[in-house]
Amino acid sequence: MKRKGILFIISAPSGSGKTTLCTRLVESVDSLYRSISMTTRPPRPGEQDGMDYIFIEKPEFLKRQKKNEFLEWAKVFGEYYGTPKKHILHMLKRGSDVLLSIDVQGAMKIKRLKLDAVYIFILPPSLEMLRERLVNRSTDSKKAICERLNVAKKEVACSHKYDYAIINNKLELALDSLRAIIIAERCKTGRS
Amino acid sequence: MKRKGILFIISAPSGSGKTTLCTRLVESVDSLYRSISMTTRPPRPGEQDGMDYIFIEKPEFLKRQKKNEFLEWAKVFGEYYGTPKKHILHMLKRGSDVLLSIDVQGAMKIKRLKLDAVYIFILPPSLEMLRERLVNRSTDSKKAICERLNVAKKEVACSHKYDYAIINNKLELALDSLRAIIIAERCKTGRS
Repeated sequence: MKRKGILFIISAPSGSGKTTLCTRLVESVDSLYRSISMTTRPPRPGEQDGMDYIFIEKPEFLKRQKKNEFLEWAKVFGEYYGTPKKHILHMLKRGSDVLLSIDVQGAMKIKRLKLDAVYIFILPPSLEMLRERLVNRSTDSKKAICERLNVAKKEVACSHKYDYAIINNKLELALDSLRAIIIAERCKTGRS
Repeated sequence: MKRKGILFIISAPSGSGKTTLCTRLVESVDSLYRSISMTTRPPRPGEQDGMDYIFIEKPEFLKRQKKNEFLEWAKVFGEYYGTPKKHILHMLKRGSDVLLSIDVQGAMKIKRLKLDAVYIFILPPSLEMLRERLVNRSTDSKKAICERLNVAKKEVACSHKYDYAIINNKLELALDSLRAIIIAERCKTGRS
């Protein structure tokens, strides 16, 4: 009997290394597909359309939102972010596991939909280290960094609402834990 | 804050490769300690006292049983098997994770104690392959093998009562899944 796909939802404060971890995770685990979110924010250096995000204009976003095409959507730092619904539900139905990387706000909205999903939170080693990473990334202004850190504090306080929490202290160890969660969840008897 | 240890309980029909898997698992995961069961059955070739089991005489077993020294005990194929209680509870209290390999009967008794534990079932690839393994092991008589296979059927039917089920088709893959379960359970937010 084929099982339904598992939806893995990953959140982390920005600067926690979530993007790198998710990319590496999909490479190192069989049959795990990333859901790409849509956003109206401009791409950061190195970000690719269709890989990191699907970058669209605001009117296009609002049109899709009106047509109820998002599983959840949010406005963060003045920009829109949304999770396209149709593709995810199709993948899950055909038995594929889906990795969805979204912020806490979005994850909590999906939780309220009572969708069967596994929630994973990635913690930075400390807020001090998070500040350093954001400064080194140097894509944000001082004010933006400060704002991001305040959001991060609130997000970390929500980590207990997730099923799993991983500290991204060393990338390889965090990756190993993430991989373990995917494999373990696939072995759960409730699913088969 | 230090978390309490996690008790991992592994069951499998005899001949499923449980012993090899458990030995390899403890070698490949940090800070996981095996609880050694006591039994009155004679050691099989290659089995070591204090490693595979603690082999004791029947009167000694019954004395300990009377003193309530076992978390659970059972009589299987005419021999006694018991899980020493004190050591396990001490390890869990000090934050160590404990691996306990017992039969389904024993696992279900522990489940009724409402002890916080993670239950893992190891499935043979098929009953036909299990029969082959038991024949090749050639430590049992034809009648004993037949008896073991009947027990195996009943045990497999209980696998849904476990949290996880792993098919031991290829040893390395099964070991990887077991390892993943240990690591994933350690990342659960409910535990920290």
